[in-house]
Amino acid sequence: MPSEWDYIAWLRLRTPRYPRVILGPGDDCAVLEPPQRPLLVTTDMLMDGIDFVVAEVGPRRAGRKAMAANLSDIAAMAAVPVAAVVSVALPQRDGQLAEELYLGLRDIADRFHVPIVGGDTNSWPEKLVISVTVLGEATKHGVVRRDGAQVGDWLFVTGALGGSILGHHLDFTPRIQEALRLQECVAVHAMLDISDGLAADLNHICHESGCGAVLVAEAIPIAPAAIELSRTSHKPPLQHALEDGEDFELLFAVSPEDGAQLLHEPPFPGLYKIGECVSSGLWLEDSTGQRQPLAPRGWVHEFV
Amino acid sequence: MPSEWDYIAWLRLRTPRYPRVILGPGDDCAVLEPPQRPLLVTTDMLMDGIDFVVAEVGPRRAGRKAMAANLSDIAAMAAVPVAAVVSVALPQRDGQLAEELYLGLRDIADRFHVPIVGGDTNSWPEKLVISVTVLGEATKHGVVRRDGAQVGDWLFVTGALGGSILGHHLDFTPRIQEALRLQECVAVHAMLDISDGLAADLNHICHESGCGAVLVAEAIPIAPAAIELSRTSHKPPLQHALEDGEDFELLFAVSPEDGAQLLHEPPFPGLYKIGECVSSGLWLEDSTGQRQPLAPRGWVHEFV
Repeated sequence: MPSEWDYIAWLRLRTPRYPRVILGPGDDCAVLEPPQRPLLVTTDMLMDGIDFVVAEVGPRRAGRKAMAANLSDIAAMAAVPVAAVVSVALPQRDGQLAEELYLGLRDIADRFHVPIVGGDTNSWPEKLVISVTVLGEATKHGVVRRDGAQVGDWLFVTGALGGSILGHHLDFTPRIQEALRLQECVAVHAMLDISDGLAADLNHICHESGCGAVLVAEAIPIAPAAIELSRTSHKPPLQHALEDGEDFELLFAVSPEDGAQLLHEPPFPGLYKIGECVSSGLWLEDSTGQRQPLAPRGWVHEFV
Repeated sequence: MPSEWDYIAWLRLRTPRYPRVILGPGDDCAVLEPPQRPLLVTTDMLMDGIDFVVAEVGPRRAGRKAMAANLSDIAAMAAVPVAAVVSVALPQRDGQLAEELYLGLRDIADRFHVPIVGGDTNSWPEKLVISVTVLGEATKHGVVRRDGAQVGDWLFVTGALGGSILGHHLDFTPRIQEALRLQECVAVHAMLDISDGLAADLNHICHESGCGAVLVAEAIPIAPAAIELSRTSHKPPLQHALEDGEDFELLFAVSPEDGAQLLHEPPFPGLYKIGECVSSGLWLEDSTGQRQPLAPRGWVHEFV
């Protein structure tokens, strides 16, 4: 870990708000108090031109997205984020870009009290690359996986979907607090954060859990951005809600009893029941009760 | 973490040799048993054209270096590496490149029983980027920092230095076993792995510890590569040993009593006493006992 990044991080580390940090940057590794419960690790690399266009959105929003996407993976398993490390390849020796990027990373990390405990800052003649790794700790309830959905479970999402490319993919809030709150209220059988798109990610849960699912078309919350985008894309807003990626809302399955309780006393606003788990297949049910096969289309990772 | 990388890693995870891994790739995060002792985190990003030229060295050696450089940071603090995550941006949708890269990462990770528990595989139209994060756990002896060197301490290195650009910077072995062995034998006051170059990294220890140091020119072990390189560089081999970066040998300080014991009963081959800590300044002592100021020159990080 080179020193130039360390100096900035180190200053911000010297506060009493991060009791877990024993040693921050300045040595070869950061040192943290050992977690009491299982340790989670997630990593995501974001590249200029693929995950954002830095010339359009600026380094601050790019940095924010890189941190938020990783925090969202911690939320997906209903854990508590503990610390982050950040490696970057800067497109030039641009101190201001580095500072803006750092501020963006901090914008969202600070909100969840996650210290950036180390990093590696490089420059090169190519485009900006940001790689974030976030460590988390399980709660006393354990982690939520993708493979626990059961036939009959109700399916929920934590917010409106679609059209994230218009801005939400940069400015979303990882659903950490919502995930932790849910786990306190109910037994979450399976969960993930929607990054590939609702249909594709639902397929992941079904595949891992060995079940199918039916979504109720009218129950799917459609983001205003999906409607706006449909004007130029000439695709229906529902299709955007089903297939656009990077909503970063939680998709989860609970028992009908727990589901009814969530509807009766929502622990937070923006909770939508969108369907149920069935024995097999992916289905979309229209307003007449007719079921059509639902293609698990979504945002495809570049390297497939 | 996208699935395409996961499949490869997952296959290799399904072995009994990694008892700490509770959940590997396939969910949004990897989940590990919590360490009993302080948790170390280090991250390094390596880029094609900066840290290696992939067209010349191939993806396997590039991957190996990326993992080894991170393991070396764990060694520098005398800790045990526990797990790694890897993010890559591939220059094209090249499955063979990805596989070779992965094999290189595993070549060295396997040697130290470090599972790759997660990752993020991307492709883009730019050059190869590899970002590795390694988690470690302190031993019962605690971690070794850079700031504990004392006036009178003896300085050692674990191997010959200089000319790493001729190959050693790709093929070095992180000194994990040596660091752990040292900590069992003696009280290591300060340590790091030589990445910037002996003089520059010695300066880091002195700066952090608030002392100076004198190196004995004749005692510095010079790598054959430093001699080979001097033929074309027209710099003396000693200068290469002092200023070339990426040797990845350990530089450490111990009390004279512990130092004498190491010389009397070396716990492993290749241990060299190269100098002592003094109250201030960086000095190089020649064969006549004359001291000249030693410039802390070395490999300069790109972004300074």
